[in-house]
Amino acid sequence: MQQVFHEISLKTDGQGFYNFTEKTLGWLNKQKITNGILNINILHTSASLIIQENADKDVLYDLKNFFDKLAPMDNKLYKHITEGKDDMPAHIKSALTNNHLTLSFKNKKLILGTWQGLYLFEHRLNKHTRILSHHLIGD
Amino acid sequence: MQQVFHEISLKTDGQGFYNFTEKTLGWLNKQKITNGILNINILHTSASLIIQENADKDVLYDLKNFFDKLAPMDNKLYKHITEGKDDMPAHIKSALTNNHLTLSFKNKKLILGTWQGLYLFEHRLNKHTRILSHHLIGD
Amino acid sequence: MQQVFHEISLKTDGQGFYNFTEKTLGWLNKQKITNGILNINILHTSASLIIQENADKDVLYDLKNFFDKLAPMDNKLYKHITEGKDDMPAHIKSALTNNHLTLSFKNKKLILGTWQGLYLFEHRLNKHTRILSHHLIGD
Repeated sequence: MQQVFHEISLKTDGQGFYNFTEKTLGWLNKQKITNGILNINILHTSASLIIQENADKDVLYDLKNFFDKLAPMDNKLYKHITEGKDDMPAHIKSALTNNHLTLSFKNKKLILGTWQGLYLFEHRLNKHTRILSHHLIGD
Repeated sequence: MQQVFHEISLKTDGQGFYNFTEKTLGWLNKQKITNGILNINILHTSASLIIQENADKDVLYDLKNFFDKLAPMDNKLYKHITEGKDDMPAHIKSALTNNHLTLSFKNKKLILGTWQGLYLFEHRLNKHTRILSHHLIGD
Repeated sequence: MQQVFHEISLKTDGQGFYNFTEKTLGWLNKQKITNGILNINILHTSASLIIQENADKDVLYDLKNFFDKLAPMDNKLYKHITEGKDDMPAHIKSALTNNHLTLSFKNKKLILGTWQGLYLFEHRLNKHTRILSHHLIGD
């Protein structure tokens, strides 16, 4: 059994979805493991991870809109307002989506559906650098 | 260490919950691995996975009703409407639940609570065939 | 490859967040595994797991408030009411958060962001004992 660790760093420039599938595949391609589990963790609580459709961009537009309405940027709703009107909604959206994705890797290929892409879901308005821990265990 | 991969295919006939626990256990029983991690991924973005109560069916009724109200089938709410009024709500419900379940397998038994069952949560109205990737790693 | 299993039992006294990070780290510190995957499963469907901010307690206050408003304790909304007005909202909140957390363990350290803590999110009003299955696989 082998294990390899890696960090992918993503620069974000405002709220929305950032597709990192190719970055993950690029790293996987260089590893000597043929089959295994890939565990991806985001090391932040105001941005999250999501597997979603990679075809029609309107899906991502509607998704963002849904979450914005569900957890509005309205300071009257929250006690935690010192870090900006976008911070508490960011924690809520993170709680509703994923801190981590666990995927299977078979014959050097990541098991994903045809229409599935890996996305960072950024919930903050300002620029951020987000660290995604990658861990592959297998043989 | 050993690894085995499998696909379970489920035919769905409209929105709702489909219990696949027995199918997963049936496959696990045939494997030569005693302890390990089981990773289950659904290869679609308009249906999802969920662990929920397997006793009172009213729980599933109320859950479905909750999600239907939270993400209504109302085209006025969405830009992505070309695939039907149920498609964008399906993506939202998938984002709010799980694309994958990661479970522990100990002494040939899947670690689950007494009242926990594994469910496919179908969000589309029409018939679909859903592929659930199963991956067991252990020894 | 080695595998170790453990159960952490948490007594809860009403709805809210219970930080169990130190209990998990205390157990990990005693294991002989240096690198691996840690899989944590909660064996209940009316309490859940969440990774959230461990700094400002107002974040947890606002999160609890958000989920209470999203899934109100109002029997008129639900069919499943025999176990109390808090039970169906508990199942909904569990469906919206996590049954399991999958984390990476590297050089004897759990990979977590600086501000991330591991929480049990209790959704029931009365006292409960919650079992969290821990499973570490690695070498």
